[in-house]
Amino acid sequence: MQARFTLYYWPIPFRGQFARYLLTYAGEDWAEADAEDVASLYRADPADQPFPMMAPPFLHDREGDVWLSQMPAIANYLGDILGLMPGTPAQDALTLKVLGDCNDVLEAMTCNSGAAMWTDDTWETFTEDRLPEWLNLFEELGQRHGLTPDAGTFLGTAQPGVADLACAALWGTILDKLPALRPLLNAQAPAVMALSRRLADTPPLARLRAGQAARWGDLWCAGQIEASLRDVLTHWHDKNP
Amino acid sequence: MQARFTLYYWPIPFRGQFARYLLTYAGEDWAEADAEDVASLYRADPADQPFPMMAPPFLHDREGDVWLSQMPAIANYLGDILGLMPGTPAQDALTLKVLGDCNDVLEAMTCNSGAAMWTDDTWETFTEDRLPEWLNLFEELGQRHGLTPDAGTFLGTAQPGVADLACAALWGTILDKLPALRPLLNAQAPAVMALSRRLADTPPLARLRAGQAARWGDLWCAGQIEASLRDVLTHWHDKNP
Repeated sequence: MQARFTLYYWPIPFRGQFARYLLTYAGEDWAEADAEDVASLYRADPADQPFPMMAPPFLHDREGDVWLSQMPAIANYLGDILGLMPGTPAQDALTLKVLGDCNDVLEAMTCNSGAAMWTDDTWETFTEDRLPEWLNLFEELGQRHGLTPDAGTFLGTAQPGVADLACAALWGTILDKLPALRPLLNAQAPAVMALSRRLADTPPLARLRAGQAARWGDLWCAGQIEASLRDVLTHWHDKNP
Repeated sequence: MQARFTLYYWPIPFRGQFARYLLTYAGEDWAEADAEDVASLYRADPADQPFPMMAPPFLHDREGDVWLSQMPAIANYLGDILGLMPGTPAQDALTLKVLGDCNDVLEAMTCNSGAAMWTDDTWETFTEDRLPEWLNLFEELGQRHGLTPDAGTFLGTAQPGVADLACAALWGTILDKLPALRPLLNAQAPAVMALSRRLADTPPLARLRAGQAARWGDLWCAGQIEASLRDVLTHWHDKNP
């Protein structure tokens, strides 16, 4: 049977990981579009697209023929359908805030999707300044909702929801793919990293991650920016073992 | 009586304009925090903030003591409260997609919030490439929902909602503050620009704009990046009168 959802994204985790984590955690099957189809949909003029969209991830929901772009819009939509939103206006809005924060961290980690390349100096500044700020912010938000390294959820909900899975898709994937950052992340945001690992280690997500690792190795955001990131990480790790 | 909502943002339109347009259009009163309060809240450690947030705009809703950051989260929350969301899962998600697109246009117009400065060359490329792409995308999305230069709404809803007001807050403000761009914007996205002007010219929004112009003049995003933008716009306008 044809899956209800198709995800159009490059064959890497990065911004596509959020939809994949939500679908996998909820036990929902989906199809991954071929990289060629992703590229041609991305390059097409808005008039020739099934729906006017700038950059992947794109989600197609066959039910109602809904097309979406923008990671937070996709995650919020899937969260609604899969029963993973908290369900109160304030906590649903807070979930959107967290998705926006996750998107901003991805931008920060990639110098705005590769608008610049990392240098040892800019990376040093980032790891002393903006990255710890983001980690403190996530940790503080989780702790205020009762999250500890051993238990709890990111927004204090009874069950993990979109915000928890977004943390796992962001931080859990960085822990997987950029191991040189583990000491810093675990030290600065112990409860958030433990939550991310707990979710990433649930059997369906563990299977997803193993499959991705088998196909894509340690690719994270790909491109020249990933090469630049790995380059500075190597130097930085030698100084911060 | 103390207003229910307080908006914390710099004294400029830019990312603060979305919440202001929604509140004003809905006839809801709100307080603007002093610039000093915005700055101190922005600089505070997450542990000392009423709520862990990275960068303005911040919204405080006294009812329920809800704090939010991230423009799309704020706009979605206000849209829910003010009755300005379409109200179906697909169109609500599409509204979030539009808010994400608006945020991306602001980032593109400011070289990622001033991460780089404009040069005549990068601006020339932007106005031949990415800016027309964004304009085509918005125009195509509106036209597919029946929007024309004379009538209609951005998502085909019976009344203007968050997506329409977001268009006005984005494109209408650019038309106001960066008049050198008017010919390009009106030529590439006539229906979207007409919608933006129609909404911006409704009496409450016209009063808001007049008050902002009296206080802030033609400031748009402020800072060195606005100086750089105005610089390249002057050269570009001389070549594209």
